[in-house]
Amino acid sequence: MRQATARAHSNIAFIKYWGNQDDDLRLPVNPSISMNLDNLYTDTTVLWDDTLASDSLTINGESASGKALERVSKHLDKLRKQLQISSPAQVQSKNNFPMGAGIASSASAFAALTLAAVTAAEVELSERELSALARLGSGSASRSIPAGFVEWHTGKTHGESFAETVVQANYWDLIDVIAIVSDEHKHTTSQAGHPTAKTSDLQNARVAGAAQRLQICKQAIIDRDFSTFTEVVESDSNLMHAVMMTSQPPLFYWKPTTLTIMESIRDWRSEGLAVCYTLDAGPNVHCICISNDADTVRNRLQTLSGVIDVRVANAGGAAHILP
Amino acid sequence: MRQATARAHSNIAFIKYWGNQDDDLRLPVNPSISMNLDNLYTDTTVLWDDTLASDSLTINGESASGKALERVSKHLDKLRKQLQISSPAQVQSKNNFPMGAGIASSASAFAALTLAAVTAAEVELSERELSALARLGSGSASRSIPAGFVEWHTGKTHGESFAETVVQANYWDLIDVIAIVSDEHKHTTSQAGHPTAKTSDLQNARVAGAAQRLQICKQAIIDRDFSTFTEVVESDSNLMHAVMMTSQPPLFYWKPTTLTIMESIRDWRSEGLAVCYTLDAGPNVHCICISNDADTVRNRLQTLSGVIDVRVANAGGAAHILP
Repeated sequence: MRQATARAHSNIAFIKYWGNQDDDLRLPVNPSISMNLDNLYTDTTVLWDDTLASDSLTINGESASGKALERVSKHLDKLRKQLQISSPAQVQSKNNFPMGAGIASSASAFAALTLAAVTAAEVELSERELSALARLGSGSASRSIPAGFVEWHTGKTHGESFAETVVQANYWDLIDVIAIVSDEHKHTTSQAGHPTAKTSDLQNARVAGAAQRLQICKQAIIDRDFSTFTEVVESDSNLMHAVMMTSQPPLFYWKPTTLTIMESIRDWRSEGLAVCYTLDAGPNVHCICISNDADTVRNRLQTLSGVIDVRVANAGGAAHILP
Repeated sequence: MRQATARAHSNIAFIKYWGNQDDDLRLPVNPSISMNLDNLYTDTTVLWDDTLASDSLTINGESASGKALERVSKHLDKLRKQLQISSPAQVQSKNNFPMGAGIASSASAFAALTLAAVTAAEVELSERELSALARLGSGSASRSIPAGFVEWHTGKTHGESFAETVVQANYWDLIDVIAIVSDEHKHTTSQAGHPTAKTSDLQNARVAGAAQRLQICKQAIIDRDFSTFTEVVESDSNLMHAVMMTSQPPLFYWKPTTLTIMESIRDWRSEGLAVCYTLDAGPNVHCICISNDADTVRNRLQTLSGVIDVRVANAGGAAHILP
């Protein structure tokens, strides 16, 4: 049997990854921290098959070619080198959420692909090795390998740049209530965005403070201190979008409704509701709260004009093999 | 006669003023460049009157007290010291545009107040001295003293920090088509905002590039090079708002419609219309174009939902005494 199926969860970063030391190796310029999202996942089956002429890919049942296949094949090349095999692979991937609109589909996709490919090759790797390998496909995929709340260490070499669990998913009952503002594919993917980070005059200043923000965020998670968490998470998200908007050319991921939601969140918080926001490279707003407040947050978001859907996710576990 | 009436124009900065070296003296951290706005002005009458018990102020015919009077009186104190007089003053001020919503009313107000107060005291000052004095009331008021396109030199002392004309108003037929998104007073005035600039991790990086951006902008004005002008003006506006959004607490001046307009401007430009945006500390969008395109820009802005008014301004002249 040269086949395996893996499930990996999407993740939402609280301290963001934006920009690489090395674009090819996807070595980031700063460490990041995230939470896996329980019910947002990708299931990927990899079959290593010598009889194939070349790699093939289906996404949600549809045959994929062009850039999507190219990116997967490029990652498979790196895995083949690492696993010392030469077979082409048949890859079947399914997301249970929309792709390319700010819910990181590449994170869960490349984490699942990596775990399935390695397992199908009957190679045993540590979680750390799997995380570093997944990173080669998509930086944030490194964070979708370990369970729960996860820190991705910057590193200076391939082997040093991997993610590991800070605390398990059940340690803190944080919820990500995701306000979907657009389900269109974005104009500029994260992959294309990272190399532009260095063109912003503000990137170095953002990066300079990232390790300190990460320590504050990590400690706030360990202390279950939502107030400190709120301040550092919103600040870090604003800093990343400040860099994006001042890149050359500028990247504006926010839509008008995005701004409405951010303003509403600040208003709700001043009224006493414990909720904060964070945004990835997309217009959707991840509204983070404690489980008791999740219904309130969801209900309020649903009343806002321009919000087309709301998804609720608990903290999720590690990438794993499906039977 | 101890009375005089002065008119001063509002101005729109192309390279922005945000943050002070010295909050009391309003010595800025970086130089700025602006264009006076011909038909947006404040007319202010000052009467030095020994028989008054204290300073009085009317704005648009209504008696003002509290913070508005306090700020004017504080500026009058500085002028009294400079002019070596001790009389209280009766001040009557009229704006022909809404205050506190991103069209700089304090710039024209403190420029007109300064010129009227000095003239009523029968003191002759140079334009440079007037500009520096106006700066003490409101930083950007220094730029509403000279004519046309104006550069405000940073300076290290009171006397060195003044504005002067780069080129006259008729040198380049730029138009400011102002999309009014809100006529509410803003939560945080520019005056209150400046001291927060240093709380942003990004302010130093913004300031470090400001002198270079100013040179590029100044040369683009001299060369009437709209393409270079567009790039540096939008970049500088984005940089200032990036600093605002990452201050502690963050300042978000943008409204959802603000974002719609900025996105539309980028779209229109990609379709060939020569127009760019810049935003002050408020939600309204100053859309800058050449006079031939002003009608097109105005008409398009009027079709956007959320735009409640559009005002069109040519480059304006110097502050001057009215008969």
